[in-house]
Amino acid sequence: MKRKICVVITARPSYSRVRSALKAIHQHENLELQLVIAGSALLDRYGNAADFIKKDGFVANAKVFMVLEGENPTTMAKTTGLGLMELTNVFYNLQPDAVITIADRFETIATSIAAAYQNIPLIHLQGGEVTGSIDEKVRHANTKLADLHLVSNEDARERVIKLGEDPEMVINTGCPSIDLAREIINEPKLTFDPLEKYGGVGKRIDWQDGYIVVMQHPVTSEYAESRQHVMETLYAVAESGIPAFWFWPNVDAGSDGTSNGIRTFREKKDPENIHFFKNMDSLDFLRLLKHSKMIIGNSSAGIRECSYLGVPALDIGSRQHRRLKAENVCHVGYNRKEILEKIMELNGKGHFPSSTIYGNGDSGKKIADILSAVKLTSSKSIHY
Amino acid sequence: MKRKICVVITARPSYSRVRSALKAIHQHENLELQLVIAGSALLDRYGNAADFIKKDGFVANAKVFMVLEGENPTTMAKTTGLGLMELTNVFYNLQPDAVITIADRFETIATSIAAAYQNIPLIHLQGGEVTGSIDEKVRHANTKLADLHLVSNEDARERVIKLGEDPEMVINTGCPSIDLAREIINEPKLTFDPLEKYGGVGKRIDWQDGYIVVMQHPVTSEYAESRQHVMETLYAVAESGIPAFWFWPNVDAGSDGTSNGIRTFREKKDPENIHFFKNMDSLDFLRLLKHSKMIIGNSSAGIRECSYLGVPALDIGSRQHRRLKAENVCHVGYNRKEILEKIMELNGKGHFPSSTIYGNGDSGKKIADILSAVKLTSSKSIHY
Amino acid sequence: MKRKICVVITARPSYSRVRSALKAIHQHENLELQLVIAGSALLDRYGNAADFIKKDGFVANAKVFMVLEGENPTTMAKTTGLGLMELTNVFYNLQPDAVITIADRFETIATSIAAAYQNIPLIHLQGGEVTGSIDEKVRHANTKLADLHLVSNEDARERVIKLGEDPEMVINTGCPSIDLAREIINEPKLTFDPLEKYGGVGKRIDWQDGYIVVMQHPVTSEYAESRQHVMETLYAVAESGIPAFWFWPNVDAGSDGTSNGIRTFREKKDPENIHFFKNMDSLDFLRLLKHSKMIIGNSSAGIRECSYLGVPALDIGSRQHRRLKAENVCHVGYNRKEILEKIMELNGKGHFPSSTIYGNGDSGKKIADILSAVKLTSSKSIHY
Amino acid sequence: MKRKICVVITARPSYSRVRSALKAIHQHENLELQLVIAGSALLDRYGNAADFIKKDGFVANAKVFMVLEGENPTTMAKTTGLGLMELTNVFYNLQPDAVITIADRFETIATSIAAAYQNIPLIHLQGGEVTGSIDEKVRHANTKLADLHLVSNEDARERVIKLGEDPEMVINTGCPSIDLAREIINEPKLTFDPLEKYGGVGKRIDWQDGYIVVMQHPVTSEYAESRQHVMETLYAVAESGIPAFWFWPNVDAGSDGTSNGIRTFREKKDPENIHFFKNMDSLDFLRLLKHSKMIIGNSSAGIRECSYLGVPALDIGSRQHRRLKAENVCHVGYNRKEILEKIMELNGKGHFPSSTIYGNGDSGKKIADILSAVKLTSSKSIHY
Repeated sequence: MKRKICVVITARPSYSRVRSALKAIHQHENLELQLVIAGSALLDRYGNAADFIKKDGFVANAKVFMVLEGENPTTMAKTTGLGLMELTNVFYNLQPDAVITIADRFETIATSIAAAYQNIPLIHLQGGEVTGSIDEKVRHANTKLADLHLVSNEDARERVIKLGEDPEMVINTGCPSIDLAREIINEPKLTFDPLEKYGGVGKRIDWQDGYIVVMQHPVTSEYAESRQHVMETLYAVAESGIPAFWFWPNVDAGSDGTSNGIRTFREKKDPENIHFFKNMDSLDFLRLLKHSKMIIGNSSAGIRECSYLGVPALDIGSRQHRRLKAENVCHVGYNRKEILEKIMELNGKGHFPSSTIYGNGDSGKKIADILSAVKLTSSKSIHY
Repeated sequence: MKRKICVVITARPSYSRVRSALKAIHQHENLELQLVIAGSALLDRYGNAADFIKKDGFVANAKVFMVLEGENPTTMAKTTGLGLMELTNVFYNLQPDAVITIADRFETIATSIAAAYQNIPLIHLQGGEVTGSIDEKVRHANTKLADLHLVSNEDARERVIKLGEDPEMVINTGCPSIDLAREIINEPKLTFDPLEKYGGVGKRIDWQDGYIVVMQHPVTSEYAESRQHVMETLYAVAESGIPAFWFWPNVDAGSDGTSNGIRTFREKKDPENIHFFKNMDSLDFLRLLKHSKMIIGNSSAGIRECSYLGVPALDIGSRQHRRLKAENVCHVGYNRKEILEKIMELNGKGHFPSSTIYGNGDSGKKIADILSAVKLTSSKSIHY
Repeated sequence: MKRKICVVITARPSYSRVRSALKAIHQHENLELQLVIAGSALLDRYGNAADFIKKDGFVANAKVFMVLEGENPTTMAKTTGLGLMELTNVFYNLQPDAVITIADRFETIATSIAAAYQNIPLIHLQGGEVTGSIDEKVRHANTKLADLHLVSNEDARERVIKLGEDPEMVINTGCPSIDLAREIINEPKLTFDPLEKYGGVGKRIDWQDGYIVVMQHPVTSEYAESRQHVMETLYAVAESGIPAFWFWPNVDAGSDGTSNGIRTFREKKDPENIHFFKNMDSLDFLRLLKHSKMIIGNSSAGIRECSYLGVPALDIGSRQHRRLKAENVCHVGYNRKEILEKIMELNGKGHFPSSTIYGNGDSGKKIADILSAVKLTSSKSIHY
Repeated sequence: MKRKICVVITARPSYSRVRSALKAIHQHENLELQLVIAGSALLDRYGNAADFIKKDGFVANAKVFMVLEGENPTTMAKTTGLGLMELTNVFYNLQPDAVITIADRFETIATSIAAAYQNIPLIHLQGGEVTGSIDEKVRHANTKLADLHLVSNEDARERVIKLGEDPEMVINTGCPSIDLAREIINEPKLTFDPLEKYGGVGKRIDWQDGYIVVMQHPVTSEYAESRQHVMETLYAVAESGIPAFWFWPNVDAGSDGTSNGIRTFREKKDPENIHFFKNMDSLDFLRLLKHSKMIIGNSSAGIRECSYLGVPALDIGSRQHRRLKAENVCHVGYNRKEILEKIMELNGKGHFPSSTIYGNGDSGKKIADILSAVKLTSSKSIHY
């Protein structure tokens, strides 16, 4: 009898981050993968992860529309409530042996509660890290609802144990996103033309001699300022003159502020050196990073995948504050002048040696092996 | 401009536990009370706390029906999702300066998320304690979502700080339920006849020469066994021959098991010495406890109010496991023989001296004073 | 490629009423049955139809808990909203070729909207009839949302056509409940002892020399009066002295009033001649009717099945007002004196000849044959 | 004691259509207006009617976010379910004496059910008309749930009566949208510069010598074809060379198709003669219509307001099929060649005499007067 492991994907970035684990679960002889696609992962506006998932050969056991329009704190909370109701129903009908909730997006707590209240063992991936904003609250609340913690670095492991969890149920598997990075780390050059393959909008930039990648998400607790924050980065990148591929943010309260800022800037300034993409296949995105000069913004890719790839990351603002960082990351505030200075400084420096603080590329397999062997339980008490 | 403090009452026992705090908030010159009555607090089957609340002179700003029928783990999770959606709307329209969530019932996390996601400062009452079952997960998740922690004893204060909270935001106010106990602790004898005043069902027992009080709730993680567990207590109490007032359990997955057990026992055995009540005014309930020989079951009243009142408590099973206990509490498993032995043992012993580990009767006032003065924030990071 | 026909069962009586159609769909070579069990059909308090359904050999494709506690007009509306959200999801994932909604219970409109808005052809069973109360609004609204109307008598067929529906899409199939009645109509005597087989509560009555059957539901638009209404019937039946089998009402706003009335009467008056049942297998119930002196109350069984069985029906109050009736039905108001008089009058009279105004027992087969052949569409315009 | 009349506004066009009635209710000495703003009326993407409502001096008693992202049939149904749950709660807390539901948008049935199930008299505005698509089903279902019908023309009045409604409860008040038209019908020329006042995107067109107005909504039952349909109109209008003001569609399943078509056309063809607006104050929009050469598309403004204003309307496709039309309307299919021919044909012809088939400009007052005097009931039976 195979163990049924139910994974809920609620957003495109979450999918990329666990793809190798999904594959390993799917292929494991003692595990059966139950896949639920929900939330913004079903929506065109946010890159429709469902299409990528299908192309990768996975079949969804259930799909759940649950995102309320409005992109504000109120709709975030209602989306979570709606998701909780629906996911409860999905788990009730699928009867999994364990449910996996991923990281710290606001809607992930819906998965956690739906499983925990139904006495289904809950496995939390990528707990124990530290950031600012609502993610911080969600992540640690997920930890307190979960029975097994598969974290992505030693720092996180120690923190989850400090939170009162049973040390035997806290395991550092590394981050599955590194598995993907490992697949392409040895490719000598970019194997596709981003403009040809992905279209996008904005100027046709000449990227062959070097380019930067930008990805800046809104920070939910700073809802009103999102627009201003992204403006600082836009001005700095435009002024640098370095060819840049800019990726639109994912769904969140405030994404309207960020998206609006980008859209306005594009229409008014029409910057010569920036090309905009909505999204990209995860492997291609990693290839693009690997061969870039640097990544700019507040995406976790700069902290995680780029530590392994050795790509310099200019981390802006509070979003990744207190995440474990390798030497590839340098930090700057929401200030166009400072951002520009750091860009120019990093521009000459070249890449860093590969770091394995987030794993060495076998997380997916480790996760599947643990899931097939670990004692699954849905009951616990705090350890102090 | 008064601070608007929104309190969400979702169950009868929660109301009793915070009544003195509600009063103090309501009367404080710098605070405005916004009261939301929701969940089982609106339902006749669970003692309709709304009626008591109204009689106490409070006016509800909003009422929210949210309990799904079924009393099983699936409906508990859906009830929480539904509550989250509705409470989000309520807070959005009431615009409070802070929201109070109480203790650890499963639906309290709906209040917590609705406030936290909308960047409304969240105050958690009675965090930091330890029990078993789903309450344990809910309580600590509430802690991780809350910004200010008003705990009810020192042990809890230390635990919340260990959970990574800012020590300045963790304050031991004692438990407001002790405030009520203080109001009646000096009454020399029972001032009403329970049978006259509350009716109830079952035999008319002769309580004037001493009686015991029984209250046993289902333990949600032991859903299937609830019926068996309550049976053990029923047999033991019946066999003891001591007059007993038995209170029906509150709403929970499994309450059907417990209620069913009680109902069946009543119809088949028709015990001579047990009289059953659905519920009672909180002060009267405390009076009944104060003048009883002991309380039996797994109600928190045995641990909290009875520590202050000095009434012996025979705590059965896992529900109050690891709560801070004064010397009045002794423990026993789900076994009729052992329960009976302990009852007989305690029967001769008399009361204990009053303990103040859960406060000395001024918690409500302390809470209101803190709420009027504390810096309210909705943003935090873990402290390690 | 078989046509996938999705049937949503939300209550025990609805199931009984379509059982023969479910069987015929299930066995039809060109049809595939998709069965969804929802609402009170999943709840023990309302007779858990799910158990009967399983015993009959049907497998549910999905189950949906959706009933809010409270049994008042507010929770009825919220239950419908919740059901609409969940059933939408279920249909989205099951992808049926057509959905069947049954009759006029308040929550059936959730099925109708979930199908209609998703452009799934909607088939309405038992439209076109006339009653009072909220059912009346729901039934005709269902008609306006549905694409195909399978009605149970000629009167109903004409009314649906008057409502502007395409006459070709309005077909009188008779009522599938008559199919069940046909199975047992020729049994010479009651083949089981109701007290032995179903237990129930109340006095052990001596039914062998004749008995009556009582079933009275609350009428939702008369919420407050439900308790009084049932009292009139209780007094009349008790006074008649004729042995009676009384069935508890199903879920509805006000059922608390009705249930409460029955419970109170039982405890206070402890009537000698009444025995109470929660529910019964549908065939056994029909057997019980067939061999009874009469049915009393406001159940549709008196109007439908009993017209075919020829059993006298004493119809009380407004609930069945304006339903098509055969000569077996006589009417009376909520008045104990009048009810008692009519009971005594009918007591001597014996049965009526079988009427086929609600069909002649082959509705299930007719429905399946139509479903396999009819042109399915989800678009229509009013015919005038 | 004033009658509390609760009006639910769920979309910008609905607001424009009832503005004069809101005003009349608000000012009536025997009525109290309770205003609920919900759905897309709260969303920036759909023109945030809430802002216009506030500017007009109305205060919302409650706001309800309820629109699910996805803009497909599945999210339409879920949005309705969510709205039903939330509006039920709103009505429960506001306790209105009557609720008004407007016309036939998919989510209006949520208002209808929330009121009808809670026994609140339901008033339906603008029933009895005929169109295609899901609106058709929703409108007539609203009629069957409503107790009082205030229709906007004689044709509609007769149809609602044919639907079995009590003729005394079906009153032709005319359409309140005509009231607005009456306010500006005598203005001799356009009193503002649309480009100055509303910005918009696209070429700065020279409109002083005549222009056309275009507004084309997706037709939900033709979800997939929306994009193609709007393309035909885009090509025809571009080729006509006549200056055109084009308005973006409102929220609906398929609006993505329509919006997408418009966006793509704009970016690829960059038409010389078309300027695009998101939305406009209702009075200004009527002014724009009044002084235009014609309106093109499938907006109801062409059928209703323009009949009174005498402005030619080129009605495209099935959306307004079977609406009552004055002589100002001519029809054409989704075919760029035919559309272009009709545009050129109408271009020379000038305006029509004012028609009063949709009222003569005093509907708002009529509605308020009826609401203050009519017998309000929540119970009815079909009339045949």
